[in-house]
This record gives sequence, C-alpha cells and structure tokens, in this order.
Amino acid sequence: MSKRTGPSVAFQGEFGAFSHIAAQKLLGAHIHAHACSSFSQVFEILRAEKIQYSVIPIENTLHGSVYENYDHLLDSQASIIGETSVRIAHQLITMPSVPFRDVRRVFSHPVALNQCRRFFAEHSNVEPVSFYDTAGSVKMLQAEQPGASAAIASETAARIYGGVIRKRNIEDHRQNFTRFFLLSKRAPRKPLGTGDWKTSAVFSMANRPGQLFKALGCFALRDITLTKIESRPLRGKPWEYLFYVDFLGAADDTPVKNALANLAELSEFLKILGTYRPTP
Amino acid sequence: MSKRTGPSVAFQGEFGAFSHIAAQKLLGAHIHAHACSSFSQVFEILRAEKIQYSVIPIENTLHGSVYENYDHLLDSQASIIGETSVRIAHQLITMPSVPFRDVRRVFSHPVALNQCRRFFAEHSNVEPVSFYDTAGSVKMLQAEQPGASAAIASETAARIYGGVIRKRNIEDHRQNFTRFFLLSKRAPRKPLGTGDWKTSAVFSMANRPGQLFKALGCFALRDITLTKIESRPLRGKPWEYLFYVDFLGAADDTPVKNALANLAELSEFLKILGTYRPTP
Repeated sequence: MSKRTGPSVAFQGEFGAFSHIAAQKLLGAHIHAHACSSFSQVFEILRAEKIQYSVIPIENTLHGSVYENYDHLLDSQASIIGETSVRIAHQLITMPSVPFRDVRRVFSHPVALNQCRRFFAEHSNVEPVSFYDTAGSVKMLQAEQPGASAAIASETAARIYGGVIRKRNIEDHRQNFTRFFLLSKRAPRKPLGTGDWKTSAVFSMANRPGQLFKALGCFALRDITLTKIESRPLRGKPWEYLFYVDFLGAADDTPVKNALANLAELSEFLKILGTYRPTP
Repeated sequence: MSKRTGPSVAFQGEFGAFSHIAAQKLLGAHIHAHACSSFSQVFEILRAEKIQYSVIPIENTLHGSVYENYDHLLDSQASIIGETSVRIAHQLITMPSVPFRDVRRVFSHPVALNQCRRFFAEHSNVEPVSFYDTAGSVKMLQAEQPGASAAIASETAARIYGGVIRKRNIEDHRQNFTRFFLLSKRAPRKPLGTGDWKTSAVFSMANRPGQLFKALGCFALRDITLTKIESRPLRGKPWEYLFYVDFLGAADDTPVKNALANLAELSEFLKILGTYRPTP
C-alpha cells in the first residue's frame, strides 16, 4: 500500500483518485499514501493510529455533500486540521492498444459517469458501466485489458496506470470542484495552509420553533461569516436534525470563542470538529 | 403498467415499492399506478400530463434527503399538494421453494441493504447484492427463480410477487421513516390530508455574511415553525447554495404571506413549491 516516504495519509480509492490528488496538494508530493476501500476504513486506520493523516471529500459543487463523511466526523476523535479544493476534470482514458473508435464501454464511479452526461449523449454507441472507483477503473483496464473499454478518471490516474487520454475534460460543467478535509488526531507542529482561518462545528437544538434562527444568531450578532450549513437526520429521533456549520475565524479568536460559548448555552449538543487554514 | 381504475399516479420503482405504498396511503387503494424506472421519468410523465399525480420520496430519517428530488422540484412546474410518511420495515423474502437455510445471496436496493447491517453481521454466509429496487428484487426472484437467493423489500412486495417472508423486520433501526411528497400540476378539488397545513419553498441569498440568519428571521419574527431546512449547491456558482424550507402554515395565511413577502424582498430567488396538509 505504501509509496515513497513522508507523512502517512489514508484516503478512499485507488492511487490517482481525486482524494490522492488532494492529499498531495495538502501534504506535498512525497506522502506515504494508503489507499482504502471505504470511508469507514479511512476513519478506522486513523483511529487505530496506523497512519498520521486522513483525507476525505466532504462536498462537491455539483453533487452536494458527502453525507457518510459528515456522519463519520460526528463519531470520530480526529480533528479537521486542513482543507483544500480540487477541480474535477474527467479524462476519457484507454490502454495504448485501444483506439477511441473501438471503445464501446466506459467504466467509472457512478458520480463521475453522471457528470459526463453530454459525452454519453453525443456518443450513443458507448455504454457507461458503474465501477467502484474512478482511478480503480483505469487500474482494472491495465490489469485485465478487457478490450473495447475505456475509463473516466483523473490525468494522474492515466499516468499511474499507463493509460492514454483519448478525450480531455469531458465533464459537463467546468465549475466542478470537490472540497476535502485533512484529519488528524494531533494538531500539526505548524498550521498548514495559507488561507483565512476557518472552524467547523456540529450542533443540535431542542425541537422548538425558532431554534435554528437563534443558533445562527450566535454567529450573525458577532459578524462571523458562515460559509456552509448542512443538516443531517438525528438517528432515533425522526424529523430532528444535526447541523454542521463552517465559518470564518480560528477557534481561539475572541468573537469565535464567544459565539461558541453562546451556542453551547443554547444548543443541546455541540462539538467543535476543528480549526484550520485552507490550502488554495 | 396500469392496475385497476382511480386517480393515475407515477412513482419510481416496481409495484410494491415504498413509494407505491405511500401513493396508496395518499390517494387510496384504487389508484391507477404507473411504475417508473427513474425519478426523472416520474417528473417527465407528470410534466407531459400523461398522469394526474406523482409520488416522490424526499427524506429518510436514517439516510437523509433525496437530493435528486430536491433538484427536480426546482425545475418542475408541478406543486406539492400532499405529504405522508411510511415506516420502512424490511422483510427478508424468498420464493416458496427456497427455505431460509439455503439462502446465500440477498438482493435489494443498496440503501435497504445498508439499513440491515446487523442481519448481515449475524449471517456471515449470506452475501448482500445490490439491485436497482427493493420490490424489483422480489419481482426478479419470481421471474428468474435464481435459487439460493432472497430479497429485502416490503410486505406488500412479498404479497404481489408470491414471496414468503422468512425473517420479519430485519431493519437495524425501528425509527426508520421515509417522507413522501404528492405532486400535481393542478390543485386537488378538495385538499387532501388532515394534518396541520405546511408550505415548502426554495430560495437563494446574496453571498454576504448573515444572509441565512436574515432569511430565517422572516419566519422567526412571525413565530412560524420551520420543520426542515436543506441546502443544495447552486450549479455554476461554487460554494453558493439554494435553501429548501418546510414550515407550518398555509401559503394564504396572513403571517405566512407576510413572511414570504419579506423573504422575496431579501432573497435573490424565491419559489413556492406548494402548500398542503399531511396525511398521517
């Protein structure tokens, strides 16, 4: 599973997955990368201290939030210590022996296939086939040489598995970004990133009218900018919700400290998920 | 595609799907049911006026919102005219010739398989296999008689396709409900349902601090109870969001009218999705 030396970092997917690209953007090219088969495993090996860091996708600008990872963050002891975004550019990749005109099946993750609808509309003789991972579909082409087949994945995945890019940037929307969190059980020696400090938290309120308005008031009254709010169902309490918020400011800034103290007073549950500087 | 006479209603999935059960709860047993293969198709045949009503799942208490349907509601000309919830009880179903001890593979929709993790943990010789639909997996057992196979679906699906329930209520959590919306292009002659009136709307705000707080203020200042808020990415505007809200009150109640006028004044975009009485 390992590659080169450097900080050890786990992500879901194969080498060349967008999470791998995010990990390199956050921690540099010389990471000791651990490819995991599921998000549960990414959190589990961090919990067991088998690696130093994990990188998880949290949100895509077309698809929306990655809810499974919000749920894992709630249960995890790890903190968010970094953030970055990666533009999702999808490449149509084949093995060198397969020219584009021979392609009849295209393997990729269902989300990636769905983000290239125009390509499939314009190439009706080509069938999309769901696969567990974008980069994994190129790895499979290399290993199994199935013939008449292509994959949709990153340029990095094409390079790693000896693929050739036959059609470049076939995604329907250029404004397609995925945001990733970097997680660790320990604060880094010096903060990563160069962007403005951000803090993430999750809270729940009593099930009474106007409670979310009050909660957001903790931030609005101190002119703290909320950059994201996400709701998730509370298990065992139908139609009640947890709210995940990201906002500008470090957790030890006075206005943020006051806002969080105010929120602790009003909420039924509050957990700070981390404070971090984005890596542009 | 049709069954009996009565109001015509489209839903995604096969006969016996939870959406079919919701449709019967909303409109009675004698509906003229149209099974569709996708949510897009459910919206499309309503748009083309090939049917009177559509039923769509919008939210599950464990899994969260059905984002695809929020996106369709934004584009659709149809209104929400009814709402109901169905408790999701998963049954392990085989054909009469297959006893439980012979079962090695269990077919169902991935969400349903994921809601029965305890069953699979306790029966390690049984493999979960993803299928396109819960009820469709029972239909397939009946049509193909694959042997050594079971399906996870509703009691209704077992009845429709001649299945036998071998293990009852194998879902991990009893507090597992799905909420459905009833859609139509026309208001019903008399309002359906008996619950307190609710209204649903979608809006977006300028990308400035405190805007969501102001938006929720339109409701909080008039003591209007928000029952749900959901955010979805705005396509083409990375990290900006649409907010979907459900709240108590009919769209023509004075406080609701005032709140919506206030929200129209503050928001960049506002669309009323419908006003309806839930069917308990």
